Amino acid sequence: MEFLKGDERLDYLLAENLRIIQSPSVFSFSLDAVLLARFVHVPIQKGSLIDLCSGNGVIPLFLSLRTKGSIIGVEIQERLYDMAKRSIEYNQLENRIQMIHGDIKEIPKELGFGKFDVVTCNPPYFTTPTSEEINENEHLAIARHEILCTLEDAIKASSQLAKQGGKVAFVHRPGRFLDIMTLMRKYKLEPKKIQFVYPKQGKEANTLLIEAIKNGNPDLKILPPLIVYQDNNEYTSEIKEILYGK
Amino acid sequence: MEFLKGDERLDYLLAENLRIIQSPSVFSFSLDAVLLARFVHVPIQKGSLIDLCSGNGVIPLFLSLRTKGSIIGVEIQERLYDMAKRSIEYNQLENRIQMIHGDIKEIPKELGFGKFDVVTCNPPYFTTPTSEEINENEHLAIARHEILCTLEDAIKASSQLAKQGGKVAFVHRPGRFLDIMTLMRKYKLEPKKIQFVYPKQGKEANTLLIEAIKNGNPDLKILPPLIVYQDNNEYTSEIKEILYGK
Repeated sequence: MEFLKGDERLDYLLAENLRIIQSPSVFSFSLDAVLLARFVHVPIQKGSLIDLCSGNGVIPLFLSLRTKGSIIGVEIQERLYDMAKRSIEYNQLENRIQMIHGDIKEIPKELGFGKFDVVTCNPPYFTTPTSEEINENEHLAIARHEILCTLEDAIKASSQLAKQGGKVAFVHRPGRFLDIMTLMRKYKLEPKKIQFVYPKQGKEANTLLIEAIKNGNPDLKILPPLIVYQDNNEYTSEIKEILYGK
Repeated sequence: MEFLKGDERLDYLLAENLRIIQSPSVFSFSLDAVLLARFVHVPIQKGSLIDLCSGNGVIPLFLSLRTKGSIIGVEIQERLYDMAKRSIEYNQLENRIQMIHGDIKEIPKELGFGKFDVVTCNPPYFTTPTSEEINENEHLAIARHEILCTLEDAIKASSQLAKQGGKVAFVHRPGRFLDIMTLMRKYKLEPKKIQFVYPKQGKEANTLLIEAIKNGNPDLKILPPLIVYQDNNEYTSEIKEILYGK
């Protein structure tokens, strides 16, 4: 397995035959990314999909199981872009998934405005890192904090990329809920469905999934709650099914 | 029981000793009102509370079980105001609950701005009724539709009544979620906690409880989901406890 670098490992992605390159010191995908890839509405037979802030490519890989359309992933960190590219090659998905090493703010100009049926994004969650956090691990700091990409950058780029009636789906923390709603409406993305994810029964939500439609009409649905863990700290059957299939 | 009028009946309110006058043709309280009265944060020993669009006074009656503060209910329909007043008298709560027959738009001028610790409101949910609906039953049409009071009227009045740091709690349908958030922020009410109510496990939410703080800082929590019915159409244990006590 000489194509793995440093402390990278080749992990299984779900019960499927997909594999993904991960590295604890650089980037490992989160449950949030998996939930977003399953939450978003996708065209099954064809279509153009794009994933922003793609990290090691987990969302494009996951989406390839749900659609026969073409998928683009955009990642600004070369180290992560490189991991994603090798995972795609390992899974022989080069003809369906393309990775772009670039800044999402520049991507609409490069790829064209209003071209995509679906835009997904699992953006950095935290606003300002300390200089220690950046010094300690630049890769993780950039992936987790709004250093190279603010929430507004991500929502603006998503809106520019989406077709009229195209879907834009984000995952984030509930604390940024009002900001997301306000920014989506600012950029003509009308929120249509929201799902809250709760770590356990009786706990506050810690994750928010939201899908908007470019220039859609107001009509918001709140999907059933998603609970991650049972009281005994095992995944709930719903999460097991999402992660490992039936 | 000569104090009951027409088709009114004297219903039990919860497991408590409270009773409430209801009428199927004029107004009966909903589960939503009960949930709001239990959801809102209240000062226990003292304080000033006010409930807008009070109907037959269910929220003031319910709140009187949770606080020793003084409670005002405001209702624009004289027929409902009269029912609420008689219920309060029946329960001998005249010294703690006062009903005002009036328009919530005028109430801040009458009672003074920024005087209340808590403002609650279960406003009319629907925008425009047909003329048939109004002709058929004016009382129900006014209680259910934004005829005499729009959502913006209710949020504006709530903000004017609330102290700095005072709580404002609403119950509404999720379809108006974005409007509520936008209007609350317009009137300096910062949403702090939200709870979604789902009719059953696996169904979309049909009710939204939201509490904001006057001039509060942004920090939104999504409380655990509340499910109303079990699969066998009985209330869940959580709802039974809210309705009938332990």
